[in-house]
Amino acid sequence: MVRQQPSSEYRGYREPGIRLTEPILPELAEYRIETLDEVLDGIHLFDKAHLVMLVECGLVSPADGGAMLAALRDMEREGVRDARAVSGGGMHSAENYLIHRLGEDVGGQINMARSTGDIHEVARRVAITGQVLELLEVLNRLRDELLTLSVEHADAVMPGYTHGQQAQPTTYGHWLSMWASAFARDAERLLQYHERYNLSAAGAGILTGVDYPIDRDRTSELLGFDRPIPHTMDAILSRDGLLEIVSLLSIIGSNMARMGEDLVLWTSDEYAYLDVPDRFCGSSSIMMQKKNPYAPQAMKAAAAEAMALVTAAHYVEKDPTGFAMMERTVTQSLLWRCFASVISKLRQVGDLLAATTVRRERMAVFANAYWAQVTDLGGALVRHAGVSWRTAHQIVSILVRLAVERSLEPADVGPALIDEAAIEYLGRPLGLAESVVASAMDAAACVERRDVFGGPAAARNAETVALLRQRLDVDIEAEGALHAAREAARARLEEAVDRIVG
Amino acid sequence: MVRQQPSSEYRGYREPGIRLTEPILPELAEYRIETLDEVLDGIHLFDKAHLVMLVECGLVSPADGGAMLAALRDMEREGVRDARAVSGGGMHSAENYLIHRLGEDVGGQINMARSTGDIHEVARRVAITGQVLELLEVLNRLRDELLTLSVEHADAVMPGYTHGQQAQPTTYGHWLSMWASAFARDAERLLQYHERYNLSAAGAGILTGVDYPIDRDRTSELLGFDRPIPHTMDAILSRDGLLEIVSLLSIIGSNMARMGEDLVLWTSDEYAYLDVPDRFCGSSSIMMQKKNPYAPQAMKAAAAEAMALVTAAHYVEKDPTGFAMMERTVTQSLLWRCFASVISKLRQVGDLLAATTVRRERMAVFANAYWAQVTDLGGALVRHAGVSWRTAHQIVSILVRLAVERSLEPADVGPALIDEAAIEYLGRPLGLAESVVASAMDAAACVERRDVFGGPAAARNAETVALLRQRLDVDIEAEGALHAAREAARARLEEAVDRIVG
Amino acid sequence: MVRQQPSSEYRGYREPGIRLTEPILPELAEYRIETLDEVLDGIHLFDKAHLVMLVECGLVSPADGGAMLAALRDMEREGVRDARAVSGGGMHSAENYLIHRLGEDVGGQINMARSTGDIHEVARRVAITGQVLELLEVLNRLRDELLTLSVEHADAVMPGYTHGQQAQPTTYGHWLSMWASAFARDAERLLQYHERYNLSAAGAGILTGVDYPIDRDRTSELLGFDRPIPHTMDAILSRDGLLEIVSLLSIIGSNMARMGEDLVLWTSDEYAYLDVPDRFCGSSSIMMQKKNPYAPQAMKAAAAEAMALVTAAHYVEKDPTGFAMMERTVTQSLLWRCFASVISKLRQVGDLLAATTVRRERMAVFANAYWAQVTDLGGALVRHAGVSWRTAHQIVSILVRLAVERSLEPADVGPALIDEAAIEYLGRPLGLAESVVASAMDAAACVERRDVFGGPAAARNAETVALLRQRLDVDIEAEGALHAAREAARARLEEAVDRIVG
Amino acid sequence: MVRQQPSSEYRGYREPGIRLTEPILPELAEYRIETLDEVLDGIHLFDKAHLVMLVECGLVSPADGGAMLAALRDMEREGVRDARAVSGGGMHSAENYLIHRLGEDVGGQINMARSTGDIHEVARRVAITGQVLELLEVLNRLRDELLTLSVEHADAVMPGYTHGQQAQPTTYGHWLSMWASAFARDAERLLQYHERYNLSAAGAGILTGVDYPIDRDRTSELLGFDRPIPHTMDAILSRDGLLEIVSLLSIIGSNMARMGEDLVLWTSDEYAYLDVPDRFCGSSSIMMQKKNPYAPQAMKAAAAEAMALVTAAHYVEKDPTGFAMMERTVTQSLLWRCFASVISKLRQVGDLLAATTVRRERMAVFANAYWAQVTDLGGALVRHAGVSWRTAHQIVSILVRLAVERSLEPADVGPALIDEAAIEYLGRPLGLAESVVASAMDAAACVERRDVFGGPAAARNAETVALLRQRLDVDIEAEGALHAAREAARARLEEAVDRIVG
Repeated sequence: MVRQQPSSEYRGYREPGIRLTEPILPELAEYRIETLDEVLDGIHLFDKAHLVMLVECGLVSPADGGAMLAALRDMEREGVRDARAVSGGGMHSAENYLIHRLGEDVGGQINMARSTGDIHEVARRVAITGQVLELLEVLNRLRDELLTLSVEHADAVMPGYTHGQQAQPTTYGHWLSMWASAFARDAERLLQYHERYNLSAAGAGILTGVDYPIDRDRTSELLGFDRPIPHTMDAILSRDGLLEIVSLLSIIGSNMARMGEDLVLWTSDEYAYLDVPDRFCGSSSIMMQKKNPYAPQAMKAAAAEAMALVTAAHYVEKDPTGFAMMERTVTQSLLWRCFASVISKLRQVGDLLAATTVRRERMAVFANAYWAQVTDLGGALVRHAGVSWRTAHQIVSILVRLAVERSLEPADVGPALIDEAAIEYLGRPLGLAESVVASAMDAAACVERRDVFGGPAAARNAETVALLRQRLDVDIEAEGALHAAREAARARLEEAVDRIVG
Repeated sequence: MVRQQPSSEYRGYREPGIRLTEPILPELAEYRIETLDEVLDGIHLFDKAHLVMLVECGLVSPADGGAMLAALRDMEREGVRDARAVSGGGMHSAENYLIHRLGEDVGGQINMARSTGDIHEVARRVAITGQVLELLEVLNRLRDELLTLSVEHADAVMPGYTHGQQAQPTTYGHWLSMWASAFARDAERLLQYHERYNLSAAGAGILTGVDYPIDRDRTSELLGFDRPIPHTMDAILSRDGLLEIVSLLSIIGSNMARMGEDLVLWTSDEYAYLDVPDRFCGSSSIMMQKKNPYAPQAMKAAAAEAMALVTAAHYVEKDPTGFAMMERTVTQSLLWRCFASVISKLRQVGDLLAATTVRRERMAVFANAYWAQVTDLGGALVRHAGVSWRTAHQIVSILVRLAVERSLEPADVGPALIDEAAIEYLGRPLGLAESVVASAMDAAACVERRDVFGGPAAARNAETVALLRQRLDVDIEAEGALHAAREAARARLEEAVDRIVG
Repeated sequence: MVRQQPSSEYRGYREPGIRLTEPILPELAEYRIETLDEVLDGIHLFDKAHLVMLVECGLVSPADGGAMLAALRDMEREGVRDARAVSGGGMHSAENYLIHRLGEDVGGQINMARSTGDIHEVARRVAITGQVLELLEVLNRLRDELLTLSVEHADAVMPGYTHGQQAQPTTYGHWLSMWASAFARDAERLLQYHERYNLSAAGAGILTGVDYPIDRDRTSELLGFDRPIPHTMDAILSRDGLLEIVSLLSIIGSNMARMGEDLVLWTSDEYAYLDVPDRFCGSSSIMMQKKNPYAPQAMKAAAAEAMALVTAAHYVEKDPTGFAMMERTVTQSLLWRCFASVISKLRQVGDLLAATTVRRERMAVFANAYWAQVTDLGGALVRHAGVSWRTAHQIVSILVRLAVERSLEPADVGPALIDEAAIEYLGRPLGLAESVVASAMDAAACVERRDVFGGPAAARNAETVALLRQRLDVDIEAEGALHAAREAARARLEEAVDRIVG
Repeated sequence: MVRQQPSSEYRGYREPGIRLTEPILPELAEYRIETLDEVLDGIHLFDKAHLVMLVECGLVSPADGGAMLAALRDMEREGVRDARAVSGGGMHSAENYLIHRLGEDVGGQINMARSTGDIHEVARRVAITGQVLELLEVLNRLRDELLTLSVEHADAVMPGYTHGQQAQPTTYGHWLSMWASAFARDAERLLQYHERYNLSAAGAGILTGVDYPIDRDRTSELLGFDRPIPHTMDAILSRDGLLEIVSLLSIIGSNMARMGEDLVLWTSDEYAYLDVPDRFCGSSSIMMQKKNPYAPQAMKAAAAEAMALVTAAHYVEKDPTGFAMMERTVTQSLLWRCFASVISKLRQVGDLLAATTVRRERMAVFANAYWAQVTDLGGALVRHAGVSWRTAHQIVSILVRLAVERSLEPADVGPALIDEAAIEYLGRPLGLAESVVASAMDAAACVERRDVFGGPAAARNAETVALLRQRLDVDIEAEGALHAAREAARARLEEAVDRIVG
């Protein structure tokens, strides 16, 4: 097996006859490549940055380094994915490629001071931070849409719900700004995560670093990371950073599922608050009336994928330090899929909400028809009849019971019924004015009375929207800066390659 | 939009201009096709069986039915997958295909008395029961291997473990027959599941059945089901049957993870009980000594996929009846993947165990070196010194403590040390014979003394193996019968098609 | 530390100065007792059955055995729970109790040929099979209630739902029999589980059995198990049987969550199909109209507890054989809690359904108001206008679109609108009779046309109910037989104790 | 039911005869109280702060407010828990208490401008942020311990592991600083979480706020929150904040499980790296040698509780906005239990590590015995024989294979064997010096060569420890400041109460 140049016979280090005597079973080899597509970009970047650093540190000669970097640029011209697929398709496809082209003496240097461990980790972090930025962009776009729509629908009175039942009148605009607020927290978590996770594992080797005088800061900088991880075993074998993004996706997923559930209900005939454009819907092969709310359902589906991910990731990691390695391909393949679903469905729902017809009259009718406004009758009793809140609450509760027993509707409530209830509870009538009752029982008036900070009264909603808009502007800038820094690092790497390739 | 024959312009019922006015967004259309590959066979079967039944019941004319069935046979010659992909690729690809070839008057009859609901459910059940049979076959093969190996290694003494520590001496053969026993329960569950689940949803429509005088028994029989599900809403909208297979896979997965964890440890240098052939292992790009136990790790990975599945499936189903529909594509795509992994890894581990070198001397040394045998010293004290079990246990416990404090090894234990401990506890020596102590402290003798029913003594293990072999034979026959019934139904369907096509 | 009789100074085998030198930290000791309450009965039974067997096998003298059994009967008079709590509260409280009363020479014999391992497993199986029987009883009672109510409401026409939207008219009675069908499968699984799990681990020791000539069959029989587990390591260290009941609870939980979700919706003002008695509901401290559907929500809560259980149980078990031991207390404490919740809420929902007012008129109005009946208009076109199903479907789909565009309601549909749609699609009118259209568009008639096997037509529902009633009778008998066998075993044990105590 | 003062007959607003006609079923009432213990402090604080704010805003008279606050101080003297238990035990126990003492006219004012919704949310946030601070304190203490021990054991050479197998030599000190690094991230997440979550829901009512001119800022300040949540519906009905702490606990749990798994292995006889004091261990009722590693197992158990929590919490929340309310008691009861376990076990493991005996010789022997050091032989070949890294790797891989085939040990490797492998691969010997080989094959020298930033070389580990120590100091200060702010708010509240009570 004497090797000559060029090393066309090199078949990778796992080749039988080297350490091991048999080729690996095909279905086990898969584990090394199946989730590579998403990390290909990071592998390729690291291959280049590592070579640059090795040359700059004097560990590889400029001639050899230049030849290898030039070859990698050739590979880019050929198409990285295809060229790598031909060269074994894995983490070490560049090594195979370089050895075939330049011989083992030259190409065999690329993995000096490096291991599959740090390649994996660098590539994963490049991929995850890239996805996080894309997700941030989509979240910010959705927040913008929600805030715009919130102002537009600040006076669309509708019922709010608790325990699956009408609670109090609110507005569709307030529901929209709630989502802008919830997604703002998701964005905040992602930004903090990016800062915690955008660190370089390069140089951490498989867990102990390397025995070469490499420059970890330089590789980190060339790869667009903020700085090297200051512990080599922690860099490779701790996975709380992976579990964190998995968890953040599941939290976003939970928000998506909840919004999806709302939209499914509200597009049903029983609620009929919203009319979604047909392009977001499916029909049926048997029922001609069907207009199934596919896009809201797809949000719930994305959440289910996040649940799959979070459980599998934790299950995989339940092992001693460094035991679970190959099993992590399960986590990773679920992760890429989940990112794609979440990003796609969040983008979609922004379009959906913008294009949806809001049935304001229906909403208003429902907000007035089912007693959701009676909390304010209690308030009226406190203010106009001088009873304590609890006494008022008891009297109005009796009133509702009497009304239900007699099949009365909210519109039927007047001072007389209040007095009947008051006499039952207190032994005396309260003598409220008709106009006080009418105002208390008007859902739109209820909403306008909710002008506490953060409440649904239009002015208050506007105030909240303004706060959320401010926060969004900050986040858009932050996300833009991260994108720019990423691009700048890529340019820096190319310049460094230029200098060496000459 | 006036339709003429042949209906080359037919674009499916979701086409804009029919019920809805816009084409569906591409990423939502995916939900209808992404998990179809595995159910294609069931869809195709149902298309044929349904047509046969419609003709036999007089709901479609023999001429029209014959033309459609003949066309479906043409489709088989072309290749079902490709022909259907060209025809829209979904549940309704046959309808599209038939309408294009035979016009809407003829081809438009195939979905009479049928819905996407029962097509989905029939195809899912055909696919799942097929996978269950394949899984049963693999499990039975593995059980066979385990029983054969158990007999071979019935005298390979090794330590058994609890709390991660050596507990008592046992044998590798007994460990092997434990797995044969555990997998026998998995097989039993799968057989019971098959009986519960191999029922026909055909004719259940979307939830209320159909308003045609169809023959549900006939379709069921042609599809190889045992009988029709006796409730149409239950057939389509209950998903406990899906959750059950998901759960069974997770239970099998748990067994696989546990066995995988055992094998990872036992192939380590610290344990070094087993030597796995190289083809099941990976090596490292940086560490030359590495022979990573990929196949055992892959078993843990399959278990993680099962965990992903079970959580996602439950999450999807948490909805009112009939709400979660499209979301189930998440469950299904995880399910097919999980079946494939579990089947592949179970097949692999049988090969691995058969090919593995068992280091019996190492096992025996370890079983004798770390006090795992002292339980029997307690028994010896009861039998030969007349103390109660708890007194014996206390004395031997003190002995172990003394030995640990003095860095003595099990081989150093003799009557003197026992007496020292006895004096400490009881105030008097016990005077055991040297030979009694020696026998008590011999791990192989410990194992042979464990001749209680189900125990590791070689004869007892043989007895257990015989019981498990008996049970395996029954299960092999049962699985074979199910396979045969499946094939018979397919033949029956082809005959019925022959009769109509003429 | 010389021991004399009576051994009042005995403090348990974990006492410092025996094997170990320090007392255990208090918070770690908890792990051994915190989940004992539910298994106390099984521990006590095993203590007695084990002693009986030891005496019968000649391993303990009748005098000693009689003294110990008599003392355990004294303990019963004192109250087992309290007496054991005083004696250390754990698995070994009887040993402590007996040693304190009878000295170590006598009382120290009770754990001869036994280990914490088989005590745990026996007690767990006694507790679980007991809970399974209770659950079966509750499920059977609920099935009975559902079947009775199904007949009563077989003509209560209401909409069926898919994708969260009205699909086709069905009946409330059919919904009820669906649940009877679903819970029948749960009962079937539990019965099969009971048969698989009601096996004796007694004599399996900690994993290798024991080195005494014990009679495992006898102990099994005295404990009410069907037979001994034929593999000692499998008996103690395999946990698929635990994972199976955990999974079955999660499947039942999924059914409960789904039914709970239905009931929450149907008691809302938007649906208003059901009126639940007040005792199942909560009210609000602020909103006077509130009548929150607590009982249906509690069903969802029980399902969440089952999800907690299934994930934790799998997570715990992901370890090499025999490593996870103490961690299982987590599974067990979640398990007892989940059993209690599921049993309580299933009992409750039967009462709730029986006491609930069904708003049939409201249901019927909704079933006719939102186009759910148009599937049958398609059928009418096939039968009366000779077009193919797909052609009919397309025409009716166009009709629905036109109606929606023009704000027409189902009651507005007549031959003219059908012809308009037919002309648009086919270029010609179809000329259906007014009466045909009226019948097609009548939800009650739609239901009656669904007289396929398993369908909602009243007669068909009655047929399904009869089938399910038959199956229920068989299950009630099976559950009764298991209960009786359990009682018979307890009587057998007492007789055997009598013989020895004399 | 005419009410007079004092209202001894007041039975709470859920009393039959008010809104509803029947008392609630006892098992449903439980849902309102079962998880109250942990939130009692927050409820009580909010009761007082709300009254202060109402008085300050002029919504309640100073006399009435003073009387109520004085009564709550009486309650404190009686013991809040008992006094509240007597008064109904729930969210509204103070209202019941005050009405019984002061009549409905006075006491009935406490829930004016407030709802069960914001009481729940305020109390939950008070409880969670309190637990977070306690957890931070414990984490910081553990980090301190780990850093101290890391320095102490920086030269304790041991093997590092990947794929369950020895990878490269590292040190026990480096393993310890890895954990200090991992837990630093957990602390960082908790601090960021605290900042995001320590916000006031007071005034958000049940979802729309209130119709009174309350001062949300003032209540927030009195409760120790940073500011009010700027959206009332978001405050009450979004639960991503709850899901976030649940997720953070599961991530900490994953770290704990991993560390627990390491410790279980390392205290086994096969590894025998650590000797844990007896107080952290259990023994066995049958096996006298047993010293079971309870404390490490308890860490895994806490992780399992976190998994239960994260799945249940997500499952509960999969519902439309405001539907899941009562179901959240499941999440909460699991949450308090999980906090308690995690805090207790983290505290314990710090003590354990400090008290554990480290078997340095054993570690060193293992690090040299199983080829973990050969990576450096590759480096030596690159440096001293001028071959490329990959060529060196292949040659050393062949060397290891030859050694394994010939049962040679690492100590047997010399220049001759290297040359044999080199000839096989390259066709020529490399002629390395004996001393080069010896140094390459010395595990301690390997570690010292790993002096890259973050590596295990003692000096590098010291550098990492210093960085982590710096970060710890910052976090200790931050945690202290939060604790102080919490105390300051409590003082502020008492002063405000003083002013009103007079």
